[in-house]
Amino acid sequence: METLNVQLAERTYPIHIGQGLLERADLMTFALRQRRVAVVTNDVVAPLYLRRFTDSLDAAGITSVKIILPDGEGNKNWQTLNRIFDELLTQHCERSTALVALGGGVTGDMAGFAAACYQRGMPFIQVPTTLLAQVDSSVGGKTAINHPRGKNMIGAFYQPSLVLADTDTLKTLPDRELRSGLAEIVKYGLIRDLPFLEWLEAHLERLLRREPDALEYAIYRSCSNKAEIVGADERETGERALLNLGHTFAHAIETGAGYGVWLHGEAVSAGCLMAAELSCRMGLMSADDAQRIEALFSRAGTPVLGPKELPPERYLDLMRNDKKVENGKIRLVLLKKPGDAFVCDYAPPSEIAQAIASRTGGAFPAVPEAPDSR
Amino acid sequence: METLNVQLAERTYPIHIGQGLLERADLMTFALRQRRVAVVTNDVVAPLYLRRFTDSLDAAGITSVKIILPDGEGNKNWQTLNRIFDELLTQHCERSTALVALGGGVTGDMAGFAAACYQRGMPFIQVPTTLLAQVDSSVGGKTAINHPRGKNMIGAFYQPSLVLADTDTLKTLPDRELRSGLAEIVKYGLIRDLPFLEWLEAHLERLLRREPDALEYAIYRSCSNKAEIVGADERETGERALLNLGHTFAHAIETGAGYGVWLHGEAVSAGCLMAAELSCRMGLMSADDAQRIEALFSRAGTPVLGPKELPPERYLDLMRNDKKVENGKIRLVLLKKPGDAFVCDYAPPSEIAQAIASRTGGAFPAVPEAPDSR
Repeated sequence: METLNVQLAERTYPIHIGQGLLERADLMTFALRQRRVAVVTNDVVAPLYLRRFTDSLDAAGITSVKIILPDGEGNKNWQTLNRIFDELLTQHCERSTALVALGGGVTGDMAGFAAACYQRGMPFIQVPTTLLAQVDSSVGGKTAINHPRGKNMIGAFYQPSLVLADTDTLKTLPDRELRSGLAEIVKYGLIRDLPFLEWLEAHLERLLRREPDALEYAIYRSCSNKAEIVGADERETGERALLNLGHTFAHAIETGAGYGVWLHGEAVSAGCLMAAELSCRMGLMSADDAQRIEALFSRAGTPVLGPKELPPERYLDLMRNDKKVENGKIRLVLLKKPGDAFVCDYAPPSEIAQAIASRTGGAFPAVPEAPDSR
Repeated sequence: METLNVQLAERTYPIHIGQGLLERADLMTFALRQRRVAVVTNDVVAPLYLRRFTDSLDAAGITSVKIILPDGEGNKNWQTLNRIFDELLTQHCERSTALVALGGGVTGDMAGFAAACYQRGMPFIQVPTTLLAQVDSSVGGKTAINHPRGKNMIGAFYQPSLVLADTDTLKTLPDRELRSGLAEIVKYGLIRDLPFLEWLEAHLERLLRREPDALEYAIYRSCSNKAEIVGADERETGERALLNLGHTFAHAIETGAGYGVWLHGEAVSAGCLMAAELSCRMGLMSADDAQRIEALFSRAGTPVLGPKELPPERYLDLMRNDKKVENGKIRLVLLKKPGDAFVCDYAPPSEIAQAIASRTGGAFPAVPEAPDSR
């Protein structure tokens, strides 16, 4: 097990990464004010891991209320959020009861927002079970639900007391979800960690083969990058915005295509390549660098083009509601080279549209063949 | 104009109290990051004050998006909250756009919660137009919506950047709402400020006659008490709970009777007297003191009994979801004497039920005759 800390003064919290952590409910007890928790999970994760986790809680003398939600980004909305509140109130959960999110990014985002709002805030613990959640969404305190007009538009900054990332859960992860997680991992290399990007170029196939050592290293390194950024800029007044490389495009894809049609990491992959394309068009980055980035996403098997149904004008309309917009200006994360990103508020809309157009044409993301397991 | 500050380190903010403040949009500009704000109000306040306020904004060079909601506690729910989000997104409001609440407690609670959640937090300004909002709900950062199973169950601690309390708006306040506000004012005297309680006993009729000087003093003194408490305990880990004198009973009344049937201050009046009754039954306070308290609420014209439709068992069921419950124990604010309150977690449920029963029998709160204006 590896451990690192997100440094936020009196709200500093540990991230544990390793195998068999679902059985380690004892690691949670320091964060509990009661011997009772509420576990929010979904109908895909519950049959696989809920029993294993609650048995471990039982063994530690902790009882649990179970709240099982429908899976999928399309359910990350008010209606599903209200089901959490209904259940918490029906079961007389208190504001000192801890809420545990057991699942992927959708479960974590929604449970985290519920924890932020229920009785104005209850303790919160993340137990991410997808690669994307383990490297990104479970760390850093961004919680949210979607609004029909924009992804993650309604939410809160609300930090967990603990993140418990059990890499064993990745064994049952569908291939498409694994690849989606890889796209977010590549992003860390692109924005600020060239040595990690080079490591990924050398070892990507080991990740696709799900070698435990490689996965644990990639998760640890990703979380280290995120923890550093979040510790320095919790509420995204500066450097934290870099974590959104590709995300302004990606959110437009996810909202425009319909929530859940594209996985988040798939949209981030296409979005990072749109940002790279725009960076080249604006003379900020070389075409060779852009090709190098495309090659890596291609090997990860995530989309290199946006969906053909979505015209550039629709992106621009959706992007005007992006959270980084200020005084009407779209602010994008662009690249000078791999490992060196910055926030740019002067990209001309016409250039943005052309970059999108030249990176459009992808169908519903096709799941590529599994790599040979040499 | 009187000014006081809520001391919260870098989030310290001023409360301005006085006449003609709706015309003083210039007092807001220090808190704005854009020359554009969104104003949330309701369909009762809008015809009275929205134009006066937005004219003042216009004169200060600030444009405004107007969001007009249906009035009343019965609308303090997800559906109405979502109307705020819909409008903010349709109008491309940004996370640096400020949200202004122009109205009473329902408007302020709901707009404040919307500001806390929209894009994970936008600047927020309170312009309270009812006595209750001016002395209580606009100060201190508690925001929330109701859930069918409990009042204010879903919300956030989210401080405004500024509170602008224009006492001129009280001229059009319905009598019943004025009295509801007086109940919250009496509460400050009861929990910690005996000299203020004595002042209220001496000058209540001046408040009922809406004498501007008396109102301004009562509002200032109430806000001073609240600001002191909130500055010391923003998130209610200790002393702040005292502000909830009568509120555990009151929330049960409001939820049990149906949101909006009883005004909040009406329920607080009956609730404070239930707390006083329980304090007497437990030998904590003398019967004389309880009678003194009842006399003051009677003069204010707020209910001294809870609704006859609501049996004690229903209170106890609703009270088990109170936010102060910890490890299953109901925690109530009780009185040793007027001006001296404390949090008690050992009141036996049977005693609580008897105190409620002996304070039950009120009908839908009758509006008393207006006092003679001698």
